Amino acid sequence: MASTLLTRQLAVSLQQNLRLATPGCRYVSKTATKTVSEFEYDAPSMKTPMPGPKSQELTRQLGEIQNVGAIHFFCNYEESRGNYLVDVDGNRMLDVYTQISSIPIGYNHPALIKVMTNPNNVSAFVNRPALGILPPENFPDKLIESLLSIAPSGMTRVQTMACGSCSNENAFKAMFIWYRNKERGHSNPSEEDIGTCMINQSPGCPDLSILSFMGGFHGRTLGCLATTHSKVIHKLDIPSFDWPIAPFPKLQYPLEEFVRENEQEEARCLEEVEDLIVKWRQKGKPVAGIVIEPIQAEGGDNHASPDFFIKLRNIARKHGCGFHVDEVQTGGGATGKLWAHEHWGLDDPADVVSFSKKLLTGGYFHRDELLPDKPYRIFNTWMGDPSKNLFLAEVLNVIRRENLLEEVTRSGKALLQGLYALQTQYPNILSRARGQGTFCAIDACDDATRNTIMLKARDKGVLLGSCGERSIRFRPALVFKEYHVHQLLNILNDVLAEQKQRPGCQVSHQ
Amino acid sequence: MASTLLTRQLAVSLQQNLRLATPGCRYVSKTATKTVSEFEYDAPSMKTPMPGPKSQELTRQLGEIQNVGAIHFFCNYEESRGNYLVDVDGNRMLDVYTQISSIPIGYNHPALIKVMTNPNNVSAFVNRPALGILPPENFPDKLIESLLSIAPSGMTRVQTMACGSCSNENAFKAMFIWYRNKERGHSNPSEEDIGTCMINQSPGCPDLSILSFMGGFHGRTLGCLATTHSKVIHKLDIPSFDWPIAPFPKLQYPLEEFVRENEQEEARCLEEVEDLIVKWRQKGKPVAGIVIEPIQAEGGDNHASPDFFIKLRNIARKHGCGFHVDEVQTGGGATGKLWAHEHWGLDDPADVVSFSKKLLTGGYFHRDELLPDKPYRIFNTWMGDPSKNLFLAEVLNVIRRENLLEEVTRSGKALLQGLYALQTQYPNILSRARGQGTFCAIDACDDATRNTIMLKARDKGVLLGSCGERSIRFRPALVFKEYHVHQLLNILNDVLAEQKQRPGCQVSHQ
Repeated sequence: MASTLLTRQLAVSLQQNLRLATPGCRYVSKTATKTVSEFEYDAPSMKTPMPGPKSQELTRQLGEIQNVGAIHFFCNYEESRGNYLVDVDGNRMLDVYTQISSIPIGYNHPALIKVMTNPNNVSAFVNRPALGILPPENFPDKLIESLLSIAPSGMTRVQTMACGSCSNENAFKAMFIWYRNKERGHSNPSEEDIGTCMINQSPGCPDLSILSFMGGFHGRTLGCLATTHSKVIHKLDIPSFDWPIAPFPKLQYPLEEFVRENEQEEARCLEEVEDLIVKWRQKGKPVAGIVIEPIQAEGGDNHASPDFFIKLRNIARKHGCGFHVDEVQTGGGATGKLWAHEHWGLDDPADVVSFSKKLLTGGYFHRDELLPDKPYRIFNTWMGDPSKNLFLAEVLNVIRRENLLEEVTRSGKALLQGLYALQTQYPNILSRARGQGTFCAIDACDDATRNTIMLKARDKGVLLGSCGERSIRFRPALVFKEYHVHQLLNILNDVLAEQKQRPGCQVSHQ
Repeated sequence: MASTLLTRQLAVSLQQNLRLATPGCRYVSKTATKTVSEFEYDAPSMKTPMPGPKSQELTRQLGEIQNVGAIHFFCNYEESRGNYLVDVDGNRMLDVYTQISSIPIGYNHPALIKVMTNPNNVSAFVNRPALGILPPENFPDKLIESLLSIAPSGMTRVQTMACGSCSNENAFKAMFIWYRNKERGHSNPSEEDIGTCMINQSPGCPDLSILSFMGGFHGRTLGCLATTHSKVIHKLDIPSFDWPIAPFPKLQYPLEEFVRENEQEEARCLEEVEDLIVKWRQKGKPVAGIVIEPIQAEGGDNHASPDFFIKLRNIARKHGCGFHVDEVQTGGGATGKLWAHEHWGLDDPADVVSFSKKLLTGGYFHRDELLPDKPYRIFNTWMGDPSKNLFLAEVLNVIRRENLLEEVTRSGKALLQGLYALQTQYPNILSRARGQGTFCAIDACDDATRNTIMLKARDKGVLLGSCGERSIRFRPALVFKEYHVHQLLNILNDVLAEQKQRPGCQVSHQ
């Protein structure tokens, strides 16, 4: 969203909003009467038009250094608390986007501040090691305490990385290495392999491919980008690989009302996957791995059924392709389980599961077979950051201690029910409410309407994110309770009551 | 270096070493009698064979989770100080490798601990923002105070990233975008561009290339890896791009004794660069950018003259290619200047300069023209980490306050003179001593001898790194003083005095 788009001329304070009597239900939270956690605020509070004057001045300053077209506003992170993000102009918003879904337990959680102020942890912050060669004493223990305690079924191996893109790039590499070792019968590489790889030529750099899905998003570095197909702006002008791209099911929502149609659509996509695997093998570019998100996020919050994923996993196995589930956005609890793929109910859900964002460190879990056969094949200087593992261990403690997955499931139900109610109430504007846990989305009738709704919601103190062509995605932190859901729905209701239908704007149900 | 290689049966304590009378000079530092900084140790101290029993046990534990073939040993970072790395078995080593050249001012520097314990900084650690959309209030100031205060000549723009690979991947993307915009005459992309880019096809994903050099290293993600040509282990089994690879000059050392021969060699390489640019243009894969390290590090510490780089920069300009100087390893002061390219004396040294490692955050500087024309083209969730910028600002303060660049120049001279003396004394074992500042290297007569020297040095308390086929690279922190140089040289001297020449092991001067 360009900042120019965001420039608004009128300030509407929350106080004013509350005076607007609107049609439709008004949520009064039972939980809202409970004592709010000491450290959190109780509601949004807007003081200036958005972005405010300080944000505008800082954007101008940063504009001397970087392209600032994506800057929403500048934040006062010191003053932000829990679900509330405070900006530099003193505006306080309910944050339902959480830094592109990357803040697990809200701002300034006391447990995380404790990690920071624990003298035993200082060294992990000031002495960043090269983890692949000289790890700190507590590294195996911290991995076991944090990441391995949430390892996906069938996986006891994990490799940390610095970010989501590096996680996926290295997961792809692990699949390529594993695939070529199978092809070679686990014998040593030939002289030809060794000679050609140094000059980027086959067979040393083989013509292998990764199968991805239209609408998928797996990052923006060149390897990842070859599997990303969500928006033109990510892809344009960047060289790519000739790798196969399958259709992702375009389902109708609510899923339970369109079971037969959706089954047919999923079957069509699975058939195409098998066709592409065969076709690319014939082309001399065999598919070493399939990469997929459990819910396509950036591409528009596109869901598929557990049955689809179970069958896809079997297709991968049948054709000897690695199966890589990219949980960079879905992982970490927002779907009501720590991993979205847990909803499939499989003992052996994947060969590789990558993560980042809410996990605070990047990385990927993998099955034993995908362990690189030699050192330095999956490697870089830092290979993650132990200080992030410290935070993650504490985040997992909080998730367990505060039963946040149950909380997410409860809040998610309230959120999805509320979205259903809104689309019933505004059938000309909204459609396709969908979600799992609080990982929810709803579509506006068009792009412009979606953007207007988001800007108006922000003016009233709710920060939302967009995805796909016309979707609003909800990505609150795991501490988003039912009364936060009600705050959100009330404000959305106010926005929609003011929203006129644009001419020609028609909702889609597919 | 595989940990198995490192298993040694005999412990030789430093005290014992000192009793070994060896031929050759013995350095007695004047500075060594000075009071050592309060927080640092005064010498190595070895207590167990390397790796010690605790490291072995931890390596076994980590081996259940990851490939541990590259693990040297486990560290006690709490106890490490300045130039001395302490391991979990209580061994204390003079660290001349510094986490693959990524520790700028030694371990546990009091100034960095102060950053950690400053309550004003807590928020930057516990609330990692999505910098591209919601930066913190102090972000422009911190960029100006830290990175922009050391911007290369001609550059006022900087983009932070999480690591070296992401920095280079995004620098490549910036060059591709810039190049295609030039080709299109800065008009909007065509419908064909838009349609084809989503399916990885030309012209939307154009057949552009990056020219790199044999022996170069620019990272291990798929885009970077297509420009990396240092070792088979990095490249094998990973698909790549058909991009041109030029020879990097193979110079004879000391440079001042082989001026004419080296000039000829550099001219040969430059001619090849121009030929490749023409050839790849004719192939329909124009060279959008040239990427090069000022000193090829991972590839063997290969130097080239300022004249070579000046001419290469002109060739890039003449052919309309971006010129990307990768300072991930050379940047941050080890050559005696903050950027190695400063030694070329150019006002307009490059279009892009990438960095990471000693700068603690990744990123790249660039000329105005390479600013992406639209938001979200150079983007990811985190786009760096403001907590790393805090540390960097303090590191730069320390570099200035303690005149560390002068210190590096002084220590570097002592180191290089010492290496010259060693190769004169052991002409059958050592050759090709070379370096700039403390960024030095020397070659052993073969791979096995190099590895033995490094292991023996470690047993005596000096941690070294290798590069290329038979080189030892010296990568101390910027706080490596003359008396640390003398400690290093004395121990190397002891190792070499014990070192028998392997049959058939012949030094190379080229």
